[in-house]
Amino acid sequence: MRMYDLILKKRNGEALNKEEIDFFVQEYTKGIIPDYQASALLMAIYFQKMNKEETVCLTESMMNSGEVIDLSSIEGIKVDKHSTGGVGDKTTIALGPIVAACGVPVAKLSGRGLGHTGGTIDKLESIPGFSVEMTKETFINNVNRIKLAVAGQTANLTPADKKLYSLRDVTATVDNISLIASSIMSKKLASGADAIVLDVKSGSGAFMKDIDEAFLLAKEMVDIGNNVNRSTVAVVSDMNQPLGYAIGNSLEVKEAIQLLKGEGPEDLKSICISLGSYMLLLANKVATEYEGKRMIEQAIESGKALQTFKNFVENQGGDIAYIEDLNLLPQATEILTYKAKKSGYVHKIEADIVGVSALILGAGRDTKESKIDLSVGIILNKKAGDFVEEGEILAYIHCNDFAKGNAAIDKLATAYIIEDFEPEYRPFIYGVVTKDGIKRL
Amino acid sequence: MRMYDLILKKRNGEALNKEEIDFFVQEYTKGIIPDYQASALLMAIYFQKMNKEETVCLTESMMNSGEVIDLSSIEGIKVDKHSTGGVGDKTTIALGPIVAACGVPVAKLSGRGLGHTGGTIDKLESIPGFSVEMTKETFINNVNRIKLAVAGQTANLTPADKKLYSLRDVTATVDNISLIASSIMSKKLASGADAIVLDVKSGSGAFMKDIDEAFLLAKEMVDIGNNVNRSTVAVVSDMNQPLGYAIGNSLEVKEAIQLLKGEGPEDLKSICISLGSYMLLLANKVATEYEGKRMIEQAIESGKALQTFKNFVENQGGDIAYIEDLNLLPQATEILTYKAKKSGYVHKIEADIVGVSALILGAGRDTKESKIDLSVGIILNKKAGDFVEEGEILAYIHCNDFAKGNAAIDKLATAYIIEDFEPEYRPFIYGVVTKDGIKRL
Repeated sequence: MRMYDLILKKRNGEALNKEEIDFFVQEYTKGIIPDYQASALLMAIYFQKMNKEETVCLTESMMNSGEVIDLSSIEGIKVDKHSTGGVGDKTTIALGPIVAACGVPVAKLSGRGLGHTGGTIDKLESIPGFSVEMTKETFINNVNRIKLAVAGQTANLTPADKKLYSLRDVTATVDNISLIASSIMSKKLASGADAIVLDVKSGSGAFMKDIDEAFLLAKEMVDIGNNVNRSTVAVVSDMNQPLGYAIGNSLEVKEAIQLLKGEGPEDLKSICISLGSYMLLLANKVATEYEGKRMIEQAIESGKALQTFKNFVENQGGDIAYIEDLNLLPQATEILTYKAKKSGYVHKIEADIVGVSALILGAGRDTKESKIDLSVGIILNKKAGDFVEEGEILAYIHCNDFAKGNAAIDKLATAYIIEDFEPEYRPFIYGVVTKDGIKRL
Repeated sequence: MRMYDLILKKRNGEALNKEEIDFFVQEYTKGIIPDYQASALLMAIYFQKMNKEETVCLTESMMNSGEVIDLSSIEGIKVDKHSTGGVGDKTTIALGPIVAACGVPVAKLSGRGLGHTGGTIDKLESIPGFSVEMTKETFINNVNRIKLAVAGQTANLTPADKKLYSLRDVTATVDNISLIASSIMSKKLASGADAIVLDVKSGSGAFMKDIDEAFLLAKEMVDIGNNVNRSTVAVVSDMNQPLGYAIGNSLEVKEAIQLLKGEGPEDLKSICISLGSYMLLLANKVATEYEGKRMIEQAIESGKALQTFKNFVENQGGDIAYIEDLNLLPQATEILTYKAKKSGYVHKIEADIVGVSALILGAGRDTKESKIDLSVGIILNKKAGDFVEEGEILAYIHCNDFAKGNAAIDKLATAYIIEDFEPEYRPFIYGVVTKDGIKRL
């Protein structure tokens, strides 16, 4: 088999078969197929697309390129949750303990990665002492014992996807539904979950700007999951403004804990209830989505979710005093304000711009080597639909450096879209994709 | 400027401007832009095409990536001839001396390259002593003195094209009209000719299988040439069977010399007259194509072309005894025959298959390191349109090794298409493309 023939075949619009996809993934991972042939194939895939069979083959092939985690010694149905990523997304931090409190085991492998803010692990490290360093045995024991553990991703998880993603990132071949779906799903499948609930974001702050595209991606991933016998459901939700009010590491942890305390913003609560109910459903804990929602709400209201979070943090070395008194969490030295230049209704807060603003403050990583400032970030004071008077505060900027703070405000000024008239109603959750098809709300 | 943005722009169907194309060509040649980004761009170009301005920019940029030969110290208008390549194409060997005999300077820089047979230089080396090693000054003096010289291409001619072509060759991005046209024209322009006559082949043995595609390529190259003020004309001719009867190095030299002696096959003569007449026209030697044809025919009939060839060979160290007695040229030890399995009319002789057959015999290079056997090759005995009786000889196989000879025959068996009925008439020259447009015959 020759890589040249595979490129030619795809370029000419033909489908690749399982043997060809396996050959490509295996030989590329080994470094036998050079980057320049891989990128030519990726660009050909961008134009000619992949069909369902090809996408499933690619996913399985990437999944098998490295370690495949065996979680079978954890009792019960392990349901993983994955978000395609957005700004202010602290869902995992809140949802993990909520679902665990309902008796569903949550064995979360998480990464750090580049982005506007750190990843889930970085955020949790706002709590002093908290650590994700543990052996595989300890990880499994922890989940069996308190239903929730978060560990760092093994270095050898889907090396093919890592290598291909790096290449796509520099060759303008990222935005293809099959490639995105197989990249996400290969990692989820290799992480060993029995079932998967996906949170697919749509809007200016998400990878999929367009709702229809977001549903297509959701459908693609749900199909892959069900094709390989892992029950998979996707919720498509809005990312035309940041999720919740807080953007930044310790600020997001604070907001997530507030939710567990029965407070917290409506949109965050809404997505946690929606995703959580499907997690309970796939874990056979409840018979209907409605029943799932009730159980999630009760887990929060009863304080069981908060207690599970404390047990989890304590178990991984974290100081729970910081959960009890959120003011102890890392705080920035300065809080600047960004005020409205005119009165009107907030129509939109471009989430990607808010993200860049947080990055300017030092909340995220620009390169692998960047050090994250856990204390900085943005607290929105007004969100879409709110009316604001001229001079009223739109957002608080938490910074440790005036120059960075002002640069972040300059950036933020382009994120808020304010108009004289009221914005149209826009649902927060657009719909759900299950193996039975797409259900738009 | 970032290469990523250029890939994205082209991927999205936008045109690249001169600065962007120069950036790509220069930085890629220097090795700053990696192969994997270049191949992604090439595949994007394959799908999104390049417009006329982009193609001209790419050509000029590749031309300027290395040495640009200055032939201004050669008197007269220097007209270069280039063929897009076919099987049995010995046109340059015959046409050079013919045109030179008409008083037009022919300063030919030629390569060796990979292929079914060697390049023009390899073929000419069938004549013992013949050498293309000479200084630039000697080369120019030779052309001024006897109107014809052939030298090896300088190593630093269009390095960008060399690097890009190698990459296209292994990433299935060769067959795009703009990329083919700019590759050919950048080399021709860097070789310093004032005017260019192109021989664009069409058919199974050519790069362009389809006649319409061949005209498009011809038009693209003619437009590039005229855009950069080099008068350019292209003749589109048939390559649905090999040109002439001989395929192989010394066998082709023999056939070319036979043409100079007033013999030789009709198709070879026809293409020499057609290309030659345009060379004389562009060199302002004649006022009309018709006048050019007359002058070419006279150069052959009068023996002046043969004499010019002898002067040229002698001047470059070759033994002209080999021209006077063609039987002295390198000969294979064995001549096998390939016979018709049924009676009928020859409809086609798949030229590319004949080429592979010659390659099996050792006539060409598979890799840069392959050594060429100058003596081996194939002499066709029947060509398209001919009637053949069962058992009659279709071709003679000149070989130095029975195993290779028989393997070549096996291959050749798939090249001849013989039918019960007479084939339709197919013109040999399909048309001409000048700056005034396409003229199909």
